[in-house]
Amino acid sequence: MKAVGIVVEYNPFHNGHLYHVQQTRKKTKADCIIAVMSSSFTQRGEPAIVPKWERARMALAGGVDLVVELPYPFAVQTAESFAHGAISILDALFCEQLCFGSEHGNIDAFIEIAQLLTNEKEQHDEKVKHYMKQGMSYAKAYALALNDIGHDILDISQPNNILGLHYVKAIIEQQSKMTPETIQRTVAHYHDKTLPVNESIASATSIRRFLQSNHDDVVRYVPKTTYDTLQTYRHTYTTWHDWETYFPLLKYRLLTMEPDDIRYIAEVEEGIEHRLKKAVAHATSFHDFLSAIKTKRYTWTRLQRICTHILTNVTKKEMAKALKNKRATYIRLLAMNEIGRAYVRKVKKQTTLPIVTNVKHIQNDAVYHIEKKAAQAYMCILPEPLRTEALQREYATPPLR
Amino acid sequence: MKAVGIVVEYNPFHNGHLYHVQQTRKKTKADCIIAVMSSSFTQRGEPAIVPKWERARMALAGGVDLVVELPYPFAVQTAESFAHGAISILDALFCEQLCFGSEHGNIDAFIEIAQLLTNEKEQHDEKVKHYMKQGMSYAKAYALALNDIGHDILDISQPNNILGLHYVKAIIEQQSKMTPETIQRTVAHYHDKTLPVNESIASATSIRRFLQSNHDDVVRYVPKTTYDTLQTYRHTYTTWHDWETYFPLLKYRLLTMEPDDIRYIAEVEEGIEHRLKKAVAHATSFHDFLSAIKTKRYTWTRLQRICTHILTNVTKKEMAKALKNKRATYIRLLAMNEIGRAYVRKVKKQTTLPIVTNVKHIQNDAVYHIEKKAAQAYMCILPEPLRTEALQREYATPPLR
Repeated sequence: MKAVGIVVEYNPFHNGHLYHVQQTRKKTKADCIIAVMSSSFTQRGEPAIVPKWERARMALAGGVDLVVELPYPFAVQTAESFAHGAISILDALFCEQLCFGSEHGNIDAFIEIAQLLTNEKEQHDEKVKHYMKQGMSYAKAYALALNDIGHDILDISQPNNILGLHYVKAIIEQQSKMTPETIQRTVAHYHDKTLPVNESIASATSIRRFLQSNHDDVVRYVPKTTYDTLQTYRHTYTTWHDWETYFPLLKYRLLTMEPDDIRYIAEVEEGIEHRLKKAVAHATSFHDFLSAIKTKRYTWTRLQRICTHILTNVTKKEMAKALKNKRATYIRLLAMNEIGRAYVRKVKKQTTLPIVTNVKHIQNDAVYHIEKKAAQAYMCILPEPLRTEALQREYATPPLR
Repeated sequence: MKAVGIVVEYNPFHNGHLYHVQQTRKKTKADCIIAVMSSSFTQRGEPAIVPKWERARMALAGGVDLVVELPYPFAVQTAESFAHGAISILDALFCEQLCFGSEHGNIDAFIEIAQLLTNEKEQHDEKVKHYMKQGMSYAKAYALALNDIGHDILDISQPNNILGLHYVKAIIEQQSKMTPETIQRTVAHYHDKTLPVNESIASATSIRRFLQSNHDDVVRYVPKTTYDTLQTYRHTYTTWHDWETYFPLLKYRLLTMEPDDIRYIAEVEEGIEHRLKKAVAHATSFHDFLSAIKTKRYTWTRLQRICTHILTNVTKKEMAKALKNKRATYIRLLAMNEIGRAYVRKVKKQTTLPIVTNVKHIQNDAVYHIEKKAAQAYMCILPEPLRTEALQREYATPPLR
């Protein structure tokens, strides 16, 4: 039974994702496709538009056999830590291959550059530091440093290329037996903000924008299960999950926080705490707030992650404890079909990480400690009694089938 | 020019308060009546139904000549610290008399008991400790201990009697030259929850309940300015300020707080932090939450104060710093008429505490540090852009006239 891993957010699951799953099965001849999926917040520091359970249901319907959770400490992270967390889970589940979508589409380039980065690590690190001292963001410094050490075959300013590169690097560094594979992304660009007129594939960003502006005719760009799940969720819970909805909580939190407290929060660098407090008092929306604090050094994505950590109250200390080994400490099952269930049964006794269906068994785990706080913060925008019900659901839900 | 002080919350200002102001002027022959008024949250740990500026306007219209702020560290406190803060401000403003409403109505009893408590302090303190060890609340233990040291002329289970007693005690302890006076409260009981049918005086509690249930015919129980101010506020800001409105923020905060963080909060005693976190996850309203955590030892009032400190993020350390001398550190003017203005002009150069109209002069004051956080938290339930406007108003508003 051949298992192949994919790393996903499904925010929400759309036709491009469907294509990726289908191509993965075709290209790798996978019997079981395993998706490791970000939980409540995404790598770019945004609340997922609907909860993990809804997104896991979409994934099953879209052909994924097994959905497991990428917990918050890895999910809301730089591409590097994100990749390490995801790869550690797929590796522990004995995936033979990893198959990611990329703008580049040829796996050789990723392997070559990943090896270059591994071999020239010291030199590259030094150059990254050098560029950051000039006030550049980490991502920008990383790319320039990579050019300096002699590479020009992969455009790592493309979001799926850089993620893919970090997956391959993580595979090498973790000495995983997984072989990486990539599928070229065809139509939509990751950050596209408008929906394409003549295509059935649109970016998740543009689909979310469309949903948020209260249009529901995204039916063309998503499978039916996604459409129905989104409609049902919106109808039952009365809201999407997006930053503007969380802004009152973030603003309240920042206004009552001491600058010293802000400094303890993950990813916050000294000096920004006063700017955050000052700007939030005048900001009437999340977008205004971020626009007011953005600089060359702090990218939009990084600031969104900082805001997410403030919202969820995740400290540097907690994060360091959770990321001590760069690897996940458990595997939480979110959803599985018959194939997925059979696969779990098969590997259950051999995995080095515990496979968890009931979170009561991981209450003392440092990774889960953060995941739990984040899951609770995520539900806080819902009106009562839905909020309380949603909080219970987080702990009581067995893996979907 | 004779100044007489009163201690008020005006939540909201009603006909009983009007009577108190009128009787104070009559009984004391005051030229200038000075009200020291709780800022955004009350002594019983509740958000005031409308902001301080609205309540100060009601006070002016009701015959008060000068309204000054009782800052949060004194306002949201046991009767003892509340009294010390209020008395220190009125004393610094050279009030010759203090005139409070009480159920008892005869000042001699208050003076006698206050002196008894001062003389027998050690014995009384010991007995309070003794009863508290048996699991009683502080208020209950205080009353029983008072009985034990030989007193039975003042019913201190009555809320205005116990406050009055602490005013008189504070006057003695601060060696103030103010003489205390009291006026008997006639009709409404402080905690009445229903409106009286044939009277024009109702308790503030019952008036708030009536307002909160969206009835606006409280016109009979309040002066016209109160009525108009309340209507205008509700119309402009779309909400009253009450605990149920803040509950989403409190719940969010408690869910994302670490038990260790809760222990740092003012008035929290070790042990309760886990109960708070557990109960809040299941509570769909503030009332449910408090009902779930109430015990013999933790009275409703005390728990409300704890919740207020959690909401405003005020720590034991900050509170201790602010209350170091038990006395206020500045006098902030909220409102004054011609008489009040003339009085301020007269005493300005002689006061031992700075008289403040612009808060930029007290940014480094430990008392104001807390007051500011509380004022910001108080505005957090408003929808944007009203929240941002209200936050600016807090700093930019000169004393009302």
